[in-house]
Amino acid sequence: MRSLPLSRVYQLLEPGPVVLLTTALQGRANIMTMSWHMMVEFEPPLVACVVSNANHSFRALRKTGECVIAVPAARLAPKVVQVGNCSGRDIDKFAAFGLTPVAAERVASPLVTECFANLECKVTDTRLVNQYNLFLLEVLKAWSDPAQKRPKTIHHQGYGRFVVDGATIRLKSSMP
Amino acid sequence: MRSLPLSRVYQLLEPGPVVLLTTALQGRANIMTMSWHMMVEFEPPLVACVVSNANHSFRALRKTGECVIAVPAARLAPKVVQVGNCSGRDIDKFAAFGLTPVAAERVASPLVTECFANLECKVTDTRLVNQYNLFLLEVLKAWSDPAQKRPKTIHHQGYGRFVVDGATIRLKSSMP
Repeated sequence: MRSLPLSRVYQLLEPGPVVLLTTALQGRANIMTMSWHMMVEFEPPLVACVVSNANHSFRALRKTGECVIAVPAARLAPKVVQVGNCSGRDIDKFAAFGLTPVAAERVASPLVTECFANLECKVTDTRLVNQYNLFLLEVLKAWSDPAQKRPKTIHHQGYGRFVVDGATIRLKSSMP
Repeated sequence: MRSLPLSRVYQLLEPGPVVLLTTALQGRANIMTMSWHMMVEFEPPLVACVVSNANHSFRALRKTGECVIAVPAARLAPKVVQVGNCSGRDIDKFAAFGLTPVAAERVASPLVTECFANLECKVTDTRLVNQYNLFLLEVLKAWSDPAQKRPKTIHHQGYGRFVVDGATIRLKSSMP
């Protein structure tokens, strides 16, 4: 994993890929699948996300105020769906699905080795958590896997239907 | 335009497409391009979005508490970028780029005829507007164009680079 400039984080999340979110509570790591996230600020990168209070990860995120957002390439789609269809209450999802946690630098939540990008985050605003389960996160440190250059990602359309990234187009734009 | 069940709105926004946002202030409609949005609740559908206070639309959204989110197919990408690269302060973007506003049912902001889905929204929470320009919207009414069935959408990766929807895959999942 190579350090990624924080100024480039938005380019990973703005296209709306399905991501994984890891937490760690009392020494036990967990991982969930998430599609409800968006960018809020470029740099330092702020990200909003919704983690349902029905998810096992909710409590860890709330208690520790830390997580990692990991971005999986399309080839990981079957594992991403499996992660999303069970609970860390019942099993160790890293072991069950062959995902490799590795220590992060700024947070206790682990990075996911198989993902092409990992973002270490701390919760910075909880005003909308009680009503909407909506967390504001600041990305403290970002990593990318130099062996996976801009892989295709997946986007959820509901009930296990995903669209995979297709062609890339470039249009003249003055916007970042 | 055909009425779309509110329960299906998340399937449009969760994949992270670039969208258009229309507003109307004192009889004058405006339109902007937006990629910073996410689902917050299934039904009634809640959506979070960031509209910079540097954008001309910010004032209209704040003052009227209404907008329309319109989802453009990939073929509209050149227009979507043009809309994003100028301001309603200076020009009538509908006229300039050949987009056709049509009256909505529940809000004063217009639908965009060329888009395959249109979501009429009202602002329901402004607690994070001052600090982050982050609005919470409730979708009151949704429309889809029966002539455009699940067209490919575009996802912004920064500086005019977009990824277009590619193949669709289906994986066994119990999640909506």
